[in-house]
Amino acid sequence: MRATIKDIASDTGFSVTTVSLVLNKKAYKIPESTKKQIMESAVRLNYRPNQLAVSLVKKRSKTIGLIVPDIGNIFFANMAKGIEEACRELGRTVALCNTNDRHDRDVEYINMLTDKGVDGIIFVMSRDSDFQVGHESIDLMEELKIPYILMDRFIELDGIPGVIMDHVKGGYLATKHLIDLGHTRIACVSGPMQLASERERLKGYNKALWEAGIEPDNQLLYEGDYTREGGQAAVDYLRGREFTAVFACNDASAFGVFWQLKKYGLCVPGDISVVGYDDVFYAEMLEVPLTTVRQPLYEMGMETVKRLIAQIKKQENEKRFIVFEPKLVIRQSTARRNCL
Amino acid sequence: MRATIKDIASDTGFSVTTVSLVLNKKAYKIPESTKKQIMESAVRLNYRPNQLAVSLVKKRSKTIGLIVPDIGNIFFANMAKGIEEACRELGRTVALCNTNDRHDRDVEYINMLTDKGVDGIIFVMSRDSDFQVGHESIDLMEELKIPYILMDRFIELDGIPGVIMDHVKGGYLATKHLIDLGHTRIACVSGPMQLASERERLKGYNKALWEAGIEPDNQLLYEGDYTREGGQAAVDYLRGREFTAVFACNDASAFGVFWQLKKYGLCVPGDISVVGYDDVFYAEMLEVPLTTVRQPLYEMGMETVKRLIAQIKKQENEKRFIVFEPKLVIRQSTARRNCL
Repeated sequence: MRATIKDIASDTGFSVTTVSLVLNKKAYKIPESTKKQIMESAVRLNYRPNQLAVSLVKKRSKTIGLIVPDIGNIFFANMAKGIEEACRELGRTVALCNTNDRHDRDVEYINMLTDKGVDGIIFVMSRDSDFQVGHESIDLMEELKIPYILMDRFIELDGIPGVIMDHVKGGYLATKHLIDLGHTRIACVSGPMQLASERERLKGYNKALWEAGIEPDNQLLYEGDYTREGGQAAVDYLRGREFTAVFACNDASAFGVFWQLKKYGLCVPGDISVVGYDDVFYAEMLEVPLTTVRQPLYEMGMETVKRLIAQIKKQENEKRFIVFEPKLVIRQSTARRNCL
Repeated sequence: MRATIKDIASDTGFSVTTVSLVLNKKAYKIPESTKKQIMESAVRLNYRPNQLAVSLVKKRSKTIGLIVPDIGNIFFANMAKGIEEACRELGRTVALCNTNDRHDRDVEYINMLTDKGVDGIIFVMSRDSDFQVGHESIDLMEELKIPYILMDRFIELDGIPGVIMDHVKGGYLATKHLIDLGHTRIACVSGPMQLASERERLKGYNKALWEAGIEPDNQLLYEGDYTREGGQAAVDYLRGREFTAVFACNDASAFGVFWQLKKYGLCVPGDISVVGYDDVFYAEMLEVPLTTVRQPLYEMGMETVKRLIAQIKKQENEKRFIVFEPKLVIRQSTARRNCL
């Protein structure tokens, strides 16, 4: 164990009370020579104040809980990096909680983090959160009176603080790009549709189609699960449905689409154009570097931490929703429609 | 703020002392009806014990500090996932610290985590840690008397607890595989040579060469930095040096090697065979799926947490080094030497 006030007392021969007064800078009546001896002993023994005790008194642990669906997923890993960096700069520690996209773990971790005395929670809800169970998590945090902020995934409800991206615009940008290249039969490989952030992407996809006078065809819609396997299954489903382009709602699915098309002897972008979503680091490393929608993850992480700390310090009573703008990154997986 | 014992006292009309005795299960002389009223109030107000206070009394925060060089790097993200999973199972929380591979942050975080009262530290030292500064970090943890365990990166010194992989064997397996395919001019793109784990890979590389009667040629050795850019620079350096195979000491470098070879019109594995290291998730997603050395990251994370907790509980005084075995994963980036 580390050096305590007791250790300094026995090292110097002064009482615990005297040592405590000196270390807490309340030693008004104590001789300078005593102070000096005690401070020297503290340095020699590498004494450091017990932050647990400080936290208990100040009711602030200077720790922020981060609940993410999958820290092994590069998307959330980068998000966590931005959040950790912001916390470090602002003197906070991150308590990392990984739910493997399970709502029961969301609940478990919200309770656990509150018990641990974290000052607030950054909450990226699990994939199996529909409106009802998402609401359950929010209600729990409200009941526990723990400051919180949603990130990335959200539920449609007023007065819930969050930092997200404008996914309607993201879906719109991706689809509009394909339309501009002459495509009209554009398939969509979505993520889990119970997620509001996913439904928004789809809204953007539909909006771009309607705007261009193209009626959305439900036959071209496949509900995936953000995985490569999901993207591969989508291609199997879409075969024979006469599509010339695919908008996949994350990069892993886009890669699965590419992979499966290749298996069937189809070229990207020669035969089929593909747009991804997220711009994870490997998007540009693929055989055909991926055109995709970039989320400014790092900046979003910074903003989330700042907003949460403002909430904790009650500098901000208004619980606001901050929306970041997506950006289309054009690489080599999209091309003008092949007019044979 | 959350409900406290005081809130329950004013809710029920009983004294704080009575409420405290009931909640702490020390209410031997208190009537059942009182207990019932207090417990009901506790449930209604969603009272939960303050873990900060419990931690202070028990001198255990049930939190483990994790210091990693780069959580945005998929290798460390997966390591963190294994560690978080193990901690969750064993009732611990992870305090995540990201150093961006800077030794000054290692020191900052060791101090900070100790101040915060974590029970122990899992330490993956920063890239710029040579023997001397690595030693500095260890000395600091010893001085602070905080239980710790090194993971992945280590320094050559007896009595330091760690969980690592047998990197000599890893380097050996990669190189031996290339030799078995008929290659004799095998280049090596290493990571930063101040890291002991890196020097071990090189030892394995040299060992395999000597065993096959091939004298290592320093002209074929390039010190990279674990990045794709490093791998690309290595190819520029190696041009004209008559190599037919490359062993890259991580997958990102291997990808850079592949990328740059392609730029020069060279095929993998037709012209040049490439072996990577780590088996990160995208290794098999590349244009030419990568032959690589797999580190059992998840299992290593589990073992590390178990060992650290044993140390914290003083179930284990012996500070041991646990070494995991690497495994060669053969994919499509290696082939028999092209004998023109």
